[in-house]
Amino acid sequence: MAYSLQQRLFDELDAIVLIDSHSHINPHSPTSNSLADLLGYHYYTELAHSSGMPKHLIEEAGISPREKVGRLFEFLGNIDNTVQWSWFVELSQKLFGFQHERIDKSNWESLYDLAESKMHESDWESQVLRLSKVEKVFLTNDFDDPLDGFNTERYIPCLRTDDLVFHLASPKVCERLCSASGRSLVTLSDLKQSLEVLFIRFQERGARACAISLPPWFTPKSHSDHSHSAQIALDDLLQQGHDASESHKRLIAEWVFWKIAELANAHKMPLDLMIGVNRRVYPKGVFQGQDLYDSRLSLIQYAELFNAFPNLMFPISVLASVTNQELVDYAWIFPNVLSHGHWWYSNTPNYIRQDLRGRIEAIPRNKQLGYYSDAYKLEFILPKFGMYKRILAGILASDFCQERGWSEESAVRLGKQILRGNVEHVFGL
Amino acid sequence: MAYSLQQRLFDELDAIVLIDSHSHINPHSPTSNSLADLLGYHYYTELAHSSGMPKHLIEEAGISPREKVGRLFEFLGNIDNTVQWSWFVELSQKLFGFQHERIDKSNWESLYDLAESKMHESDWESQVLRLSKVEKVFLTNDFDDPLDGFNTERYIPCLRTDDLVFHLASPKVCERLCSASGRSLVTLSDLKQSLEVLFIRFQERGARACAISLPPWFTPKSHSDHSHSAQIALDDLLQQGHDASESHKRLIAEWVFWKIAELANAHKMPLDLMIGVNRRVYPKGVFQGQDLYDSRLSLIQYAELFNAFPNLMFPISVLASVTNQELVDYAWIFPNVLSHGHWWYSNTPNYIRQDLRGRIEAIPRNKQLGYYSDAYKLEFILPKFGMYKRILAGILASDFCQERGWSEESAVRLGKQILRGNVEHVFGL
Amino acid sequence: MAYSLQQRLFDELDAIVLIDSHSHINPHSPTSNSLADLLGYHYYTELAHSSGMPKHLIEEAGISPREKVGRLFEFLGNIDNTVQWSWFVELSQKLFGFQHERIDKSNWESLYDLAESKMHESDWESQVLRLSKVEKVFLTNDFDDPLDGFNTERYIPCLRTDDLVFHLASPKVCERLCSASGRSLVTLSDLKQSLEVLFIRFQERGARACAISLPPWFTPKSHSDHSHSAQIALDDLLQQGHDASESHKRLIAEWVFWKIAELANAHKMPLDLMIGVNRRVYPKGVFQGQDLYDSRLSLIQYAELFNAFPNLMFPISVLASVTNQELVDYAWIFPNVLSHGHWWYSNTPNYIRQDLRGRIEAIPRNKQLGYYSDAYKLEFILPKFGMYKRILAGILASDFCQERGWSEESAVRLGKQILRGNVEHVFGL
Repeated sequence: MAYSLQQRLFDELDAIVLIDSHSHINPHSPTSNSLADLLGYHYYTELAHSSGMPKHLIEEAGISPREKVGRLFEFLGNIDNTVQWSWFVELSQKLFGFQHERIDKSNWESLYDLAESKMHESDWESQVLRLSKVEKVFLTNDFDDPLDGFNTERYIPCLRTDDLVFHLASPKVCERLCSASGRSLVTLSDLKQSLEVLFIRFQERGARACAISLPPWFTPKSHSDHSHSAQIALDDLLQQGHDASESHKRLIAEWVFWKIAELANAHKMPLDLMIGVNRRVYPKGVFQGQDLYDSRLSLIQYAELFNAFPNLMFPISVLASVTNQELVDYAWIFPNVLSHGHWWYSNTPNYIRQDLRGRIEAIPRNKQLGYYSDAYKLEFILPKFGMYKRILAGILASDFCQERGWSEESAVRLGKQILRGNVEHVFGL
Repeated sequence: MAYSLQQRLFDELDAIVLIDSHSHINPHSPTSNSLADLLGYHYYTELAHSSGMPKHLIEEAGISPREKVGRLFEFLGNIDNTVQWSWFVELSQKLFGFQHERIDKSNWESLYDLAESKMHESDWESQVLRLSKVEKVFLTNDFDDPLDGFNTERYIPCLRTDDLVFHLASPKVCERLCSASGRSLVTLSDLKQSLEVLFIRFQERGARACAISLPPWFTPKSHSDHSHSAQIALDDLLQQGHDASESHKRLIAEWVFWKIAELANAHKMPLDLMIGVNRRVYPKGVFQGQDLYDSRLSLIQYAELFNAFPNLMFPISVLASVTNQELVDYAWIFPNVLSHGHWWYSNTPNYIRQDLRGRIEAIPRNKQLGYYSDAYKLEFILPKFGMYKRILAGILASDFCQERGWSEESAVRLGKQILRGNVEHVFGL
Repeated sequence: MAYSLQQRLFDELDAIVLIDSHSHINPHSPTSNSLADLLGYHYYTELAHSSGMPKHLIEEAGISPREKVGRLFEFLGNIDNTVQWSWFVELSQKLFGFQHERIDKSNWESLYDLAESKMHESDWESQVLRLSKVEKVFLTNDFDDPLDGFNTERYIPCLRTDDLVFHLASPKVCERLCSASGRSLVTLSDLKQSLEVLFIRFQERGARACAISLPPWFTPKSHSDHSHSAQIALDDLLQQGHDASESHKRLIAEWVFWKIAELANAHKMPLDLMIGVNRRVYPKGVFQGQDLYDSRLSLIQYAELFNAFPNLMFPISVLASVTNQELVDYAWIFPNVLSHGHWWYSNTPNYIRQDLRGRIEAIPRNKQLGYYSDAYKLEFILPKFGMYKRILAGILASDFCQERGWSEESAVRLGKQILRGNVEHVFGL
C-alpha cells in the first residue's frame, strides 16, 4: 500500500515536462553517436579505472569506438553495483528498447548495434527529448562561445566563468578574452569592460544564468574597481603568466569573481555557485576523473557575498553532503540563497535522500530547485531524473502523506514546484 | 502493524508529564496574547522573509497585531512545507480547536478570533500546561533578572551567561553587573566576586542550571584568578568599551567562562553548553533571524574543560548535525558530558532522527536528556515535543522492539527515562 | 514479506565462512578465561565509567575476576540500551547457551558460572571459531613480536607500525627496535635498514598487511632517505628522548611513515590506514577508554601518498562518519584506495547503515572490504559480524532487490564479495 502511494506520486511527478537547469550538453551534438559516447562519460571510465582498468586501455590514440567499449566491458562488471551503472542500464532499456536485465561481456555487442541504429535515426534528438519529457536544457558555455547555430529556446545559454576567475594567468585565456571582447587587456578597467561585453552578449543570446565551480578554500571578498594591489596583481599575471605568484592569482580570482557578481546583479542573472571541488587531486586519473575535494568548508565563507548582493539570486550546489545542512540553513535565513540540485559526488541515492529530507522540511518551498542532470549527452537526463523522482516520491509519501497527513494532491503540488515551477520562476522562463 | 506498535509506544510516551529543560518563556507573560505573538516567533518571520517578504512589512512601527498577521499570511503559503509551519497548524488544532487542515489567506481571520478568545480566558496558562502535559519549565534568565513575582517551582530559573562572557566590553553590561552585584568593577577580583553574588542569588531563587551559547571558534582555557594579562585585558575593556582590542575581548571571554565553570562546579549547577552559533551573519535579517554558523568545530576544543571539572555536569547541545557524532562519543567517554535536546537548526525531523539514532544506541541511558522546547511562548511546547515523541516512538519501535527484540515495556521505560527521568536526576529536581 | 526477504538474504550471508581482516586477538590466548575478560573489554568499562562508575572500582589491584564482574554489574544497567551491550547478550546466548533475555544484577552469577565452564572446555577455541564461522583472523602485532608458537595460517600476522612512526622518541621503543632488528640506530640509514629487517621477518612469518592508526592532524609527506633535516631530527630524538622538540617528532613521524609506505610497496603488503584518532583526550579514563578525536580532517591530506604509490593498496578505515563520504569518493577515484570496515566510534548501527549505503552504491564492488571485528577475544567476532550482516542484508533487500529490482542471487553474490571475496583478493589469501 505504501508502495502504491509512492508509485502514484512518482507517476504524477514523472508526467511533468522538465526544464534541466544545468548540463554540459553540446547543442551542436546533443546526443551520442555510439555506445562509446555513453560509456566514455567520466563516471564509467573513472569507476572502471578505479576498479583496476589501466588508463591507457581506453585513452590509447586511434582505437575505434567499438574497440573502446569492448575494452571497458572487461572491467564494467566491477561496477555493476553502482548507481551510475544503473543509469546506463535504465537508459538502454527505456531509450533503446534493450530487453535484458544485465549488460555485460556476453551481450554488449547486441546493445552496441541496437544503440547505433537508434542513434542514427534522423529524429533521435527529438525522440530522446520526448521520451525523457524534457523541454529546455541549460548549457555550460565557455565565455567565448559564439552561441550561434542552435535553438536558444531549447538550449539555454549559461555563462561559465571558471576560466575568467581562476585561469587568467593562462596567456591562452587572456587571448581568448581579448578576442571575445574585442578589447586589449592592460588595466583593471579593461578587464571590467571585457567582462561587461561578455554579459551583454550572453544576455542578448538568451542566457539565463552564469555559473562557476569553486574550490573549498575560496572566500569571496569585495574589491574596488581600481584597487591598487589588484592592478599590481594583474600586471604580474599578464607579464608572468602561469609563473605569477599564487597570492596574485588569488587576488585576481577574488577581484574577477566580485566583478562577475556585480555584473550578474546588474543583468539580473542568477549566479549558480557550485561549491567545493579541488581540481586534479589525482592527476594521473582518466579524463575528467581527477577531481576530488576537502569537505572542510563553510558557507560562512560566502556571508559577505550574500549580504552584499541582496537582490542577486544564488542557486547553490554543494559537493559534499556534510555541507548540506549549512545550505539548508543559509537558504532558510538568506532570501537570496537557494538550494540547487544534487551535485556530482552527492548525486547518489544515499546522499540525495538525506540531503533532500533536510531541505524539503526547512527551506521555503519556493526556494528549492530540485534537480539538474549535469549530463554531457541527452540520453542521461532520463535515468538521472528518474532516480531523483523516485526518491522525491518516496519522501513525499513517507514524510508528508504518511507522517504529516498531507493529501496526495498537496504532495504532488509541492513536488511539481520543486521539480519545475521554481526553475521557471528563478531563471525567469 | 509496525505503525500500530509505533502508535502504542507514542501513546505511552505522550502520557508522560514533562519537564521542559530549556525555554525562553517569560514567566510574567508565559502565553500569547494574539496570533501575532505566535507568528512573530522568529521561525515564521525569518522563513517568510527568506521566501520573499520584505522585512519592513512586519517590523513597521505601529501596526496592529491583526495587521501584522495579515501581512505575514501574504507569504506564509511559501513555507507551508516546513516542519515549523506544522507546529503552528498542530497547536491551532489541539489548543484552539481549529477544525481545518489548512490555514491560509482564506481562513486565518477566523483562527485569529478563535485564538484571541481562548487566550483571554482567565485560565489559559493552566489550560495550555494541562493540554501540553507540562509540569515545570526551565527559563533563560538574564544575570540581573530579579527573579521575583513568579512561581519558581513551575518556572525554574536558569542563569544565562552569554552577556557576561562575550559582552563585558559593553558599558551597559558592566553597569548591569555592578548594579546586580552591588559591587564596583575594577579588578579581576571584583569581577569574580560579582559573579559569585549572581550564583548565590540564582541558587537562592531556585535556579537549577546555568547556560551559555557559544560561537564555533570558542575554546575554553584555564586562567588563574589573578592573571596579569587578564587584568590588563579587563582594564582595556573597562576603559575602551566596544573599542577594546579583539584579543582582550577574547581573553576576558575565556577568563569569565572559566570562572563561571568554577562557580557552577562549586554550586553544583549543571552548565548547559549550546555550542556553535555565529551571531549576526545576516545583519539585515528580521529580529532574531540573523544568526547562522560555521560547522567546522570540534568538541576537542572543550577537552581541557571536561577534564578540569570532572564533577560538573555539562548538558550539551550542538547546532549542526555534523557535530552530533562527536557529541555521542564524548558523552560515551566523559562521565560529565551529556547530550541535551535537538537545538535550533538541528531541530527538524531529518536531523533529530539521525542524531537521536546515533545517541540512543551508544550513550549510557542515564546521560541522554532527550528534548527541550526552546519556546518563547507556552503554546509551542505541545507541537515541538509532539514532533520529538513521534520520532522517538518510531526509533524505539524499529531499532529496539523490531531489530533487537525488546518488549514494549522495556522500550517505553527507556523512552521515559530519556524524556523525563534524566531531567529530574541531572538537574536535581 | 520485506522482512522475510531480508531474513533470507541474512541467512545466505550468515552461511559464509569468514576471514576477519583486523583484530587484536592474542593468538596465544585467543579466547576468554572468565566473564571478566569479556566485560573487561574497554567498551563495557568505559561506558560503565561514563555512566557513573568510579574507575578505581574495577582497576583496583588484586580483585578477583568474579569480584570485578560483580562491581561492573552495579552499573551495567545504565548501558543496556547500547549496541555494545547487545553484543554481550548475543554472545552469551549463542556461545554459552544462556537462556534469559536480560542479563543483570539478578542473574549474572549463573552466567558467570556457565561461561567459565564453557571456557574451560579443551576445545573452546575451536567451538567459538566454528560457531562464529571464522576461518582466519588477522592480528595486530607489535613490530618486535617474535611471531612464533601459533598457527599463522589461522592467525595471520599484521605489522602494526604506530610505535615506529609516533613513538621513536621513547628510548624504550628505540631499544626494542635495535633489539628486534639486531642493528644499532644512529643514522637514517640504520633506521631504514632496521625497518627493512622487520618487513622481511613479518613477511617470512606470513604477514599479509601492515597497519597504523593515525591522528587527525597527520599529513604524510615524502622525504628522501638521506634528508639532512630528518637526520638532525633523529639526532634530537635519540639524544633527548621524550624531550625532543615537537617539530622533530613530527618530522621523524613523516619520514618513518614514508619509508614504511615504500617498504609495504616493495613487499606488496597492503597498508591499512586507520585515520582519525587522538590519543589520551581523557587521560583519567579507564584503560583503553581515553581516546577521542577531532572530526575536522580530510583525505586530501593523503593525496600525495595515494599518488606516490599507485600500486600499493590502502584499505582505509575512518573514525568519524563525517569522513565517510570522502572515503567513498576517494575510493571511487583512486585505484589504490579501498574502504575497510566500520571502525570503533563508527561501528554502531546508525553509522554503519549510513556509511555502508554510501559505499555500496558508489565504490566498485571489488574495492569494498566490508567488515572486521577489531576484537580482543574471539567471542566478540560472532555478535559484531552478526550486527553488520543484518544491516548489510537489510540494505541489499531494500536498495538492491526492492528499489533496483535485483534478484536475490545477485544480491547475495554482492554481499559475499564484500564480506569475504575481496578480503581474499586484496590480501592475497
